[in-house]
Amino acid sequence: MPKNVIVGQSGGPTAVINSSLAGVFQTAQAKGVKHIYGMLNGIQGLLDSRYLDLCEVFTSNLHIELLKRTPSSYLGSCRFKLPTPEQDIRPYQQLFELFKKLEIGYLFYIGGNDSMDTIDKLSKYAETIGSDIRMIGVPKTIDNDLPETDHTPGFGSAAKYVATTVKELVRDSLVYNEKRLTVVETMGRNAGWLTAATALAKCEDNEGVDMIYLPEVPFDMDDFIDRIDKLQKFNPSVVIAVSEGVKLTDGRYVCELTSSSEYVDSFGHVSLSGAGHYMANMAAKALKCKARCVELSTLQRCSSHISSLVDTTEAFQVGSAAVQAGFDGKTQQMVTLKRLSNDPYQCTTGLVPVSAVANKERIVPLEWIDIENVHVKKPFLDYARPLIQAELTPFFVEGLPRHIRL
Amino acid sequence: MPKNVIVGQSGGPTAVINSSLAGVFQTAQAKGVKHIYGMLNGIQGLLDSRYLDLCEVFTSNLHIELLKRTPSSYLGSCRFKLPTPEQDIRPYQQLFELFKKLEIGYLFYIGGNDSMDTIDKLSKYAETIGSDIRMIGVPKTIDNDLPETDHTPGFGSAAKYVATTVKELVRDSLVYNEKRLTVVETMGRNAGWLTAATALAKCEDNEGVDMIYLPEVPFDMDDFIDRIDKLQKFNPSVVIAVSEGVKLTDGRYVCELTSSSEYVDSFGHVSLSGAGHYMANMAAKALKCKARCVELSTLQRCSSHISSLVDTTEAFQVGSAAVQAGFDGKTQQMVTLKRLSNDPYQCTTGLVPVSAVANKERIVPLEWIDIENVHVKKPFLDYARPLIQAELTPFFVEGLPRHIRL
Repeated sequence: MPKNVIVGQSGGPTAVINSSLAGVFQTAQAKGVKHIYGMLNGIQGLLDSRYLDLCEVFTSNLHIELLKRTPSSYLGSCRFKLPTPEQDIRPYQQLFELFKKLEIGYLFYIGGNDSMDTIDKLSKYAETIGSDIRMIGVPKTIDNDLPETDHTPGFGSAAKYVATTVKELVRDSLVYNEKRLTVVETMGRNAGWLTAATALAKCEDNEGVDMIYLPEVPFDMDDFIDRIDKLQKFNPSVVIAVSEGVKLTDGRYVCELTSSSEYVDSFGHVSLSGAGHYMANMAAKALKCKARCVELSTLQRCSSHISSLVDTTEAFQVGSAAVQAGFDGKTQQMVTLKRLSNDPYQCTTGLVPVSAVANKERIVPLEWIDIENVHVKKPFLDYARPLIQAELTPFFVEGLPRHIRL
Repeated sequence: MPKNVIVGQSGGPTAVINSSLAGVFQTAQAKGVKHIYGMLNGIQGLLDSRYLDLCEVFTSNLHIELLKRTPSSYLGSCRFKLPTPEQDIRPYQQLFELFKKLEIGYLFYIGGNDSMDTIDKLSKYAETIGSDIRMIGVPKTIDNDLPETDHTPGFGSAAKYVATTVKELVRDSLVYNEKRLTVVETMGRNAGWLTAATALAKCEDNEGVDMIYLPEVPFDMDDFIDRIDKLQKFNPSVVIAVSEGVKLTDGRYVCELTSSSEYVDSFGHVSLSGAGHYMANMAAKALKCKARCVELSTLQRCSSHISSLVDTTEAFQVGSAAVQAGFDGKTQQMVTLKRLSNDPYQCTTGLVPVSAVANKERIVPLEWIDIENVHVKKPFLDYARPLIQAELTPFFVEGLPRHIRL
């Protein structure tokens, strides 16, 4: 009988992070694993010995189907940076004692680049102590900013939500025959992938957004207002997309310009929220037009009621591939997605050392950005469109999508 | 052959306002009407002679099905208050000349209480000049604040969107094992119906929101922070719903407390947006916890991708009933919805003089509000739950819901 499995989820949730959990679970179960443990609140929770045996809770295929349709991280999450063993050996000793007790042979961690840092550290430590536990990272992030993979599970569903919502907002914004500006703010601190995804809203039946402001390109307020002014001469209703992380030429975030302290929390953490409201207000004052900002906020990462089936399927596949890799004896790797073709869209999985991913970011390639028109170019659309295809229909109970909970 | 029909849409859009247009169109067509004109941007556009013949654009049932799935007002909207004939007779003369030219026998206006004021004035004027044009109002508003009708088409879909989204946000907010506050701000200036609809999120698989702040009950900041503090002792993650229109005991809107000028537009109109952000920030400072505000903003009125089938059907029915009433010789009336039973849910249409609706508002009954626990009571849930049932599945093309446009 194979050794047991432990799996955790970390970082910000996505609409499909639980599909990856389903992929790990079902594949491990098919391999005859007796205990598939889930860490509660990731490595941080595990350090408090918080875990459960998933075999006891997922006892039917209906549970798995509900899990795929449930937003947020089923097992809970954490934002926790492991110290290096040199800094503090105790968490390592504690974790590997627990692994021994639970007869763990395989560890899977579903997360972004911070989580890959965790895998990197744990698997390097395993080497030093001669442990044979196989450790594989499973990628997820709505931000799509992991290097080495064509794209990241979670991005497709967030992009589908963003594009659907922007289609609806563009239609809504045209309802009055008067000058107005609608600013749609999406997530994206340094990488503008999700903001760029608003470009998908433009299709036969929709005008799409007029401009797209990415963090990859420095922002100039005067130029912004000038462009809105020109656009409104042709179409009174202008809709623009902006990343929460747009920056000025001097490197400061635009949201830092908001005079109020409203966007600083009690720990002094500056929240990046606020750029869209600020830009809308500046334009309203300068151009004497109505302006509104719609922040898509956490809705982008939890709107599982309109998740992409391509994304859900791939999220399951990377979970499944991680288990396969572990059982093939691989360790210290992250599963990647490798695109084989765009038309028809085909994608398979690969592996890459976690060290190539940990703590790194991938931004939108500059050659995909149309700087002159403050938009994105066709290669981005060709890249992103396959990822939002098809739907995973929610199970509606009493009018609302049904989820599963611990 | 019957005389021609003219129909307009006015005020803020809803996800199903176009279903009412479909109801008017198909019923008038079934009665053999030759020209069914649509006002572009309501009465205001009509005063500029902007209209079109809908028989030329809706030439197949597929158009009608797409129309039902298209958010925003297909014909455009306006926010325009007709002067009284005593103040200015010219718009009346102009409109009735146009009606004569187009051989109009029936006018239908889809809107809220301002729009009923328009019907009231126009039909009274028709009387004074001996015109036999029949004029019927078709109710719509996400705010559900029209009197004389059990509920208003548009509310059910907005409530379904709000409850679905809140379910997802509650799940998302539980992901980290730490103290945090999530404030969800919904629309509702004086009537808290949509904010109350967040209560629907609580079901077998969801904890729902912890408190619901309605504009019907005066807001006290100290009590608010005290309650959050107590709640967080049991559950670190607290989610509350708040109406954009919550007011202090002295009658001021909470959002007026925001120090910045961010929420005032260039015309000096105070936007009601901001209460949620303000409350989140005050609590974050007082309780040293992370706090986030999610404003559902215009998404509430345009998210047709998750509209309620009950709502869509009733929106169609009130449009249809308006045409029937006109052809029965009725005028100066608004169609209402009359609930026959809750279990099973049954509802039919009725009529009420527009003067009973024009410029009036209906708030949430105080006996449905649980003031002690800052929540709503069971009678509200029994009232609202039937309205969010079943779904009108979007037509997905290339991964996004398909709409129809002019």
